[in-house]
Amino acid sequence: MTRNTLDPFDGLGPLADLVQALKRLPGVGPKSAQRLAFHLLQHDRQAATDLGQALLTAVRDVQHCARCNSFSHTALCPICSDTRRNASVLCVVETPADLAAIEATHTYQGYYYVLMGRASPLDGVRPESLDWPKLATRLDDGEVREVILATNFTNEGEATAVFLTDRIRKQGVKVSRLARGVPIGGELEYTDPTTVARALLDRRPLGADPE
Amino acid sequence: MTRNTLDPFDGLGPLADLVQALKRLPGVGPKSAQRLAFHLLQHDRQAATDLGQALLTAVRDVQHCARCNSFSHTALCPICSDTRRNASVLCVVETPADLAAIEATHTYQGYYYVLMGRASPLDGVRPESLDWPKLATRLDDGEVREVILATNFTNEGEATAVFLTDRIRKQGVKVSRLARGVPIGGELEYTDPTTVARALLDRRPLGADPE
Ligand SMILES: [Zn+2]
Ligand SMILES: [Zn+2]
Repeated sequence: MTRNTLDPFDGLGPLADLVQALKRLPGVGPKSAQRLAFHLLQHDRQAATDLGQALLTAVRDVQHCARCNSFSHTALCPICSDTRRNASVLCVVETPADLAAIEATHTYQGYYYVLMGRASPLDGVRPESLDWPKLATRLDDGEVREVILATNFTNEGEATAVFLTDRIRKQGVKVSRLARGVPIGGELEYTDPTTVARALLDRRPLGADPE
Repeated sequence: MTRNTLDPFDGLGPLADLVQALKRLPGVGPKSAQRLAFHLLQHDRQAATDLGQALLTAVRDVQHCARCNSFSHTALCPICSDTRRNASVLCVVETPADLAAIEATHTYQGYYYVLMGRASPLDGVRPESLDWPKLATRLDDGEVREVILATNFTNEGEATAVFLTDRIRKQGVKVSRLARGVPIGGELEYTDPTTVARALLDRRPLGADPE
């Protein structure tokens, strides 16, 4: 059933402004914006106030970490401030969420560089437009011996990795990529053929297990 | 593929606060909240600022119209302020969006009363808890001769209409309900049987067309 398209909050000043502002959130259409505004004002004004303040505070205080480029409200983020980590390895990820995914493994002790995006030729984002120069500068100091490219295994992530590999090698730094393969718990029957093919190609020699 | 559940913004102060605040929006889970925060801070800080200010302004300024109970930032909303409307008819709707749907027909000249909700026994909202007393007071002045119940034709809307019908009749005011039937452009073959049955029951006599 189609719904009426007249804006019910039209001409209602601050309410109309709120609906307009909500519509600018990605994935929020006119109807969702109205529903959100109605919900907040009718049932949860405290949430509306908290969100309003959180937005203004975040916009004011959250910038990028001077070293890893991730979000931070301090000049250096907690990870970059931790001097006990291994400065010879640098893991390059697309977003702070990807950084968190690596941290969650509790197996990586190096530092990070967050591209804050990915090359996406279809969307007009060329690899050159990534926050790449900041990474190049960082590699210049010679401390980093290996860059682990942990961009996603999507077309965009792969294109980004290819672009960065060339440039990083030119700076004389070793480059590696996360291994592709059958996920832990994965059954071959249900794993897509490209992944299985890659796992076959990247097969690892096993040492003899002495009994 | 399942994604990592570690909060990437954990311990990041204002950013973590923003993600928490976004999670309180209905329909926004932890992953959406992260994606929204990332999008706003990385790509659209102006939208974040505008939304933050719109939320705080709306919470401060938007209250309920003293007469119709709809949202308004003035004591009386534009419709209730319009003295040219027909004061003998009052249309009762669930939400401001429903009011807008009636206004969009450009065929109704009376005033409104907005319940700002519906009876929903399953969610623990009893009919008695609606903004009903304010409506009763309004009917007391004797100006309204007919109340048109325009709550939705859902279980909740019907239950609300039944509840209100009894009470309004006791005040000596005529009650009517929006007609149910086959929608304009609707084909019987594709209309649900309950609607067709209702249309049959509520059939209207047609005058003879003189040729
Ligand atoms: Zn950092
Ligand atoms: Zn009003």
